[in-house]
Amino acid sequence: MELHTPELEKFISKERFQVLYRLTGSKDEAFEKAQDIIIEQTVEFPADLVPKGAIRDHIFGKVIDIKEVSENIHEALISYAIETAGGEIPQFLTLIFGNISIKPGIKILRIGSHPFMEKMCRGPRFGIDGIRKLTDSFDRPLLCGAIKPMGLDALTLAEMAYQFTIGGIDMIKDDHGLADQPFCRFKERVRQVSDAVNDANAKSGSKTLYAPSISGPADEILERAEFAKECGAGALLIAPAITGFDTVRSIAENDRISLPVIAHPAFMGSFTVSPDSGISHYALYGTIMRMIGADGSVYPNFGGRFSFSKEECSDIQKGCTDEFGGFRSIFPMPGGGMSVERVPELKRMYGNDVMFLIGGGLFRRSSDLAGNVKYFRELSQ
Amino acid sequence: MELHTPELEKFISKERFQVLYRLTGSKDEAFEKAQDIIIEQTVEFPADLVPKGAIRDHIFGKVIDIKEVSENIHEALISYAIETAGGEIPQFLTLIFGNISIKPGIKILRIGSHPFMEKMCRGPRFGIDGIRKLTDSFDRPLLCGAIKPMGLDALTLAEMAYQFTIGGIDMIKDDHGLADQPFCRFKERVRQVSDAVNDANAKSGSKTLYAPSISGPADEILERAEFAKECGAGALLIAPAITGFDTVRSIAENDRISLPVIAHPAFMGSFTVSPDSGISHYALYGTIMRMIGADGSVYPNFGGRFSFSKEECSDIQKGCTDEFGGFRSIFPMPGGGMSVERVPELKRMYGNDVMFLIGGGLFRRSSDLAGNVKYFRELSQ
Repeated sequence: MELHTPELEKFISKERFQVLYRLTGSKDEAFEKAQDIIIEQTVEFPADLVPKGAIRDHIFGKVIDIKEVSENIHEALISYAIETAGGEIPQFLTLIFGNISIKPGIKILRIGSHPFMEKMCRGPRFGIDGIRKLTDSFDRPLLCGAIKPMGLDALTLAEMAYQFTIGGIDMIKDDHGLADQPFCRFKERVRQVSDAVNDANAKSGSKTLYAPSISGPADEILERAEFAKECGAGALLIAPAITGFDTVRSIAENDRISLPVIAHPAFMGSFTVSPDSGISHYALYGTIMRMIGADGSVYPNFGGRFSFSKEECSDIQKGCTDEFGGFRSIFPMPGGGMSVERVPELKRMYGNDVMFLIGGGLFRRSSDLAGNVKYFRELSQ
Repeated sequence: MELHTPELEKFISKERFQVLYRLTGSKDEAFEKAQDIIIEQTVEFPADLVPKGAIRDHIFGKVIDIKEVSENIHEALISYAIETAGGEIPQFLTLIFGNISIKPGIKILRIGSHPFMEKMCRGPRFGIDGIRKLTDSFDRPLLCGAIKPMGLDALTLAEMAYQFTIGGIDMIKDDHGLADQPFCRFKERVRQVSDAVNDANAKSGSKTLYAPSISGPADEILERAEFAKECGAGALLIAPAITGFDTVRSIAENDRISLPVIAHPAFMGSFTVSPDSGISHYALYGTIMRMIGADGSVYPNFGGRFSFSKEECSDIQKGCTDEFGGFRSIFPMPGGGMSVERVPELKRMYGNDVMFLIGGGLFRRSSDLAGNVKYFRELSQ
């Protein structure tokens, strides 16, 4: 049969957006990989069987530029017709990295902004400025604690959150492993912790936001977000690689919920584990998190329990705060084995537009949790 | 404050399930990594600050065994309390690979079955046997084609599907990049292709199943699945790494939809790209796909456009068909640059319990698509 496309031109604006890929291999291999990407990611069809005309002219990706950046490492700038993304985050991700995620030696470095993206997704509702207003915290890094360990009951976690709030912490997140376990049910926890934080806020004048983890079953996430909202939780924690990236967008854009959304990196490590494959720290923890509407992006800080380098963390900060279309800047949230004592050093690196996430470290100094938070705040002023 | 857990014992059955991890490094490093996993994945809290008692006894993971399998490669068998998974796929994935996905040198090799998993998720509704009944195809490999390339209109894709069906193909999937683009809207496509396939089935006696791609926005996936069902589509295609793994479960378990679900690997490549990190082919394309209810698992075959080895593909087949609790066996669906001519070779390797996915290759032989399918069927008898 004939692959005729009589109407296609009508639907193509000729507007294109760009993605920068890192390709491993010799010059010839890099050219071959770039050619492969523009076919694999669009028509996924033998190029020689596609007749001359609109599909070839518009649907195929286009290689804009390839340059060698070091030995056997090339960067290829590739453009796609905006219509091929279909106005949806899932197809957008499929287009830029669907099948080629499986091919070795291809990594997304940067995603170029284009106005169509702001129609596809609203982006962060609050961002850095919005969270600063909500927490009444200006001209200093913000501080986030976590309630844990798993195994504690809701009452104990609520008491912990109360102490953190009295100490003046800006945000408290559920540990991301707190789900709906029989020993600490989601609803009981969220109700009790929200009440405790709101009581302590009323008593102390703090503006602490509590972010319960809502990465539950696909068909219950919205319900959990709504329940958290009803309980007076001030934010939400969600793990995009667990729930699906677009699920985060759907929660962030929900006007009835309208709460800051914090993205957690659980299950997301495979995207950055190889220097040669996956998605760059900048694009994954920065650009993509902003596109899906996260207001804060949690990641493992350098020098803690994880292995991100200082440079990678700096790239994440840039990805969170560099200009990207009309999307708001969001808080980089370095965590993962952070100690209170590192705050001054990290403040020098990150400046003020950062939210430090300290989990176990907040418990180590003394059993006076409110006092520990105050000490933490003093160090970060 | 005190980390008291007076009630925890009541909620812990003492039943545990096991996960086998591959760890890189020396013996000492492997022991350190295993110790790290049992803390990081459960309490994520300084172990020395957890008081003696129930959290330490039950919530912590436990290292059952570590053995060296080759130089600087160890395998560690680790158990978790079943309650820590919270009866939910998202927390289950978070528990077995959430934060440690970000740490280098840790890979999931195998997930041990446990009866609690069958309460957490129903698994494949159809599996190999169910799809064989629906397609009336026994004692031979099944054949799946794809409608593409992107850029064709719904009418042309429907004509293509009609020809495939007349030829006697068992399944037709949307190319996974067909979403809801302006040049080929989801609803128009699914309506027209479903009608074409059902017309051709009625005319030819084929039992072809059409699987539209429903990996749309998070808040529209269920609606797209329901629409496909209404149109008479016979199956569904969904990309778990795009939609979220548990979204697949929620669709597969939906009794109003009740259609075979085919999992597509778009965006999933980063999990298998490194030999040292991520999730094994066996566990990801086999075990996990079965847990989330996929009836077929698409993956790139060896020797095509992708780089999976023959051994990795064989592992996927085993992961799809080995006994795993009460979960049905599912079709491995090798695709990705497959040619019709390779069918005899691949049949020798895979046997009959396989569904060959041939995309562009079905178009190459001649412009008589029905004839190409018949040739393909003859080769695979």
